[in-house]
Amino acid sequence: MVNLELIGSLRQPAETTIVLLVLDGLGGLAEQPGNRTALETARTPHLDALAGEGICGLHEPIGPGITPGSGPAHLALFGYDPVEYQVGRGVLSALGIGFDLEHGDVAARGNFCTLDDDGLVADRRAGRISSETGAELCEKLRAIDLPDAELFVEPVKEHRFVLVLRGDDLHGDIEATDPQAEGEPPIEAAARASGSERAADLVRRFVGEARNMLAGEPANGVLLRGFSRRPDWPDVRDVFGLRAAALAAYPMYRGVARLVGMDALEVDGRLPERLEVMQRNWDDYDYFFLHVKGTDSAGEDNDFDRKVHLIEEVDEHLPTLREQAPDVILVTGDHSTPSRMEEHSWHPVPVMLWSPRCRPDRVTTFGERACLAGALGPRLPATHLMPLALANAERLAKYGA
Amino acid sequence: MVNLELIGSLRQPAETTIVLLVLDGLGGLAEQPGNRTALETARTPHLDALAGEGICGLHEPIGPGITPGSGPAHLALFGYDPVEYQVGRGVLSALGIGFDLEHGDVAARGNFCTLDDDGLVADRRAGRISSETGAELCEKLRAIDLPDAELFVEPVKEHRFVLVLRGDDLHGDIEATDPQAEGEPPIEAAARASGSERAADLVRRFVGEARNMLAGEPANGVLLRGFSRRPDWPDVRDVFGLRAAALAAYPMYRGVARLVGMDALEVDGRLPERLEVMQRNWDDYDYFFLHVKGTDSAGEDNDFDRKVHLIEEVDEHLPTLREQAPDVILVTGDHSTPSRMEEHSWHPVPVMLWSPRCRPDRVTTFGERACLAGALGPRLPATHLMPLALANAERLAKYGA
Repeated sequence: MVNLELIGSLRQPAETTIVLLVLDGLGGLAEQPGNRTALETARTPHLDALAGEGICGLHEPIGPGITPGSGPAHLALFGYDPVEYQVGRGVLSALGIGFDLEHGDVAARGNFCTLDDDGLVADRRAGRISSETGAELCEKLRAIDLPDAELFVEPVKEHRFVLVLRGDDLHGDIEATDPQAEGEPPIEAAARASGSERAADLVRRFVGEARNMLAGEPANGVLLRGFSRRPDWPDVRDVFGLRAAALAAYPMYRGVARLVGMDALEVDGRLPERLEVMQRNWDDYDYFFLHVKGTDSAGEDNDFDRKVHLIEEVDEHLPTLREQAPDVILVTGDHSTPSRMEEHSWHPVPVMLWSPRCRPDRVTTFGERACLAGALGPRLPATHLMPLALANAERLAKYGA
Repeated sequence: MVNLELIGSLRQPAETTIVLLVLDGLGGLAEQPGNRTALETARTPHLDALAGEGICGLHEPIGPGITPGSGPAHLALFGYDPVEYQVGRGVLSALGIGFDLEHGDVAARGNFCTLDDDGLVADRRAGRISSETGAELCEKLRAIDLPDAELFVEPVKEHRFVLVLRGDDLHGDIEATDPQAEGEPPIEAAARASGSERAADLVRRFVGEARNMLAGEPANGVLLRGFSRRPDWPDVRDVFGLRAAALAAYPMYRGVARLVGMDALEVDGRLPERLEVMQRNWDDYDYFFLHVKGTDSAGEDNDFDRKVHLIEEVDEHLPTLREQAPDVILVTGDHSTPSRMEEHSWHPVPVMLWSPRCRPDRVTTFGERACLAGALGPRLPATHLMPLALANAERLAKYGA
């Protein structure tokens, strides 16, 4: 894995710009007819030309055989070892709904549940109440007053919500209150480390007050899990010397980018508009993370043709990106989402790096099998991409004399 | 990275000889006309034949995107993780002028400077005095007497010199005295760890006495930085069981080889003579490190044709090397020095390993792009080369039963 301290010690300023273009879930498996993956099927003259001038390969987001979630997979692309830099479930959920987490916030995933007369969990999902009801109940719980702490109760969907506690010196090393089984009582929130005592106490108060407020409702209790604190990680500005911007529409990706110190610029869902936003902000940043979500969704929907179509659409816009004359272009996915698996997979992900300073290999087609012969190799750890991009952007000094 | 302890635990004796032939700065970038690198351009029938019988690939000296200095790059080729085994700047400078550092010596880089009447640095380089003047001033400072310690003041070039302190229990964790700015006073030498108090005290005495001695000169002060102790590392003899000899003309490479316990044999600058020295010493060693400097210098001088020519010259002498019948031959560079960059770069370096026990791949040409398809892969960590050479020399026992 990449040694952030070493890379940080070598960073040097440069007037260069790096663009990371992520087609979410890009990698796939070959399908019939044609025995080709979606990327191999798509007509991609511009990506192929870029591959011809650049270096190709396949990256492994986390490690051999490991299927990544979107959060860790993106952290790896940003140069952060996703096994060392772990985001708690509560924090990921808060990021996923676009909640603006501040440093020190503690977040948890919540369920509205039904408790029976003995206080045992009768239904962990309170009969899957509607999203409207869920939102109303969240609104109600916001009235809970906690000593020296702010409280946020944000609806997610149906019975699910996010709880955020904000205050001085709160820590999230707290046992889940969700017994994960019906017929059991909720577990009392307990700190697993002394630093988390205060937050655990606030959670116990919240749970007690919520029960009073919800009495009589079908959803008369709350279950909490995934307690975690917004991590306080080294910033891409400090480690890599990059002023970085995320051009992503989905809250989750914007949130993960913000965790490492990127600005999440306002964009809508369309790629051309995202390229315009990039152009307008070109001089203010050294690094743009451009995220395309549709390819992953198409894979998860088992819609091979839509995935092909979306890849072709990105290809059509590549000349606009190149007109902006970035110094380094990386094109890849965060993980594979083969249509016929309908979910993320562990398969290595096609990647290409282009810069005038790279040493082109013989790959002239951007596709899973073609990339196997590339200079980046068939199983590049994803975390290596950031230092390689920095080197090609002349942003790393020599190590030793 | 390679686990030296594991490798050391497996070493077994054998009557075999390994030759590591390093063409400094071998790797390059393709240039016009021809769109080929220097190595791809050079006519190298003997290297190509060796590639056909051996295994090829490209190695990464330090890590992805990291441009290596010559010291760390060679340590990696010798099997030592260059991030774990760091050589201080003072020690590297002493090695670079061929100073015979002993275990426990503390070295620093020095500048003669000009101080104004208030004792502030008026010129960090004392007007770039001539090398002759620099040498005279060094001679003068050698008269300084330090309690229970020997002192060496060795000229480098112009205003630059190396200071070496020799005595019991000296350590080099000392702040630089160079303020790195003019108009500031020199910084008083201070230990950054308690073990370095005594050496810091000797440095303060040296600086004070130097100032007295140099009063009236245009160069009337000294600035010191890069304090470091000659490292006390595991020896190639102990770790790998190798009696190793360096056939290198430049002091820096001889010095780094000696740091890991190689003998630096006397050679002049020409390759044929170096091969003769190897032949004469054949029975006394198990490992020869043969260093060719010119390829790097040609790259740094942006002299593509000279680099091509020097590679062809090495190729012509390869039959002489093979006549000696080594059991393992490694041919590579310590890093890339593309002519058009005129400096070291991060690009992976072509490498081949030949032995009667290797499993040849399909590569039959020694060149950057051809090596991509080789058995050593496109991004082999350089530290892997030593255990691979040892295995091919039947010098590593089975691990476990």
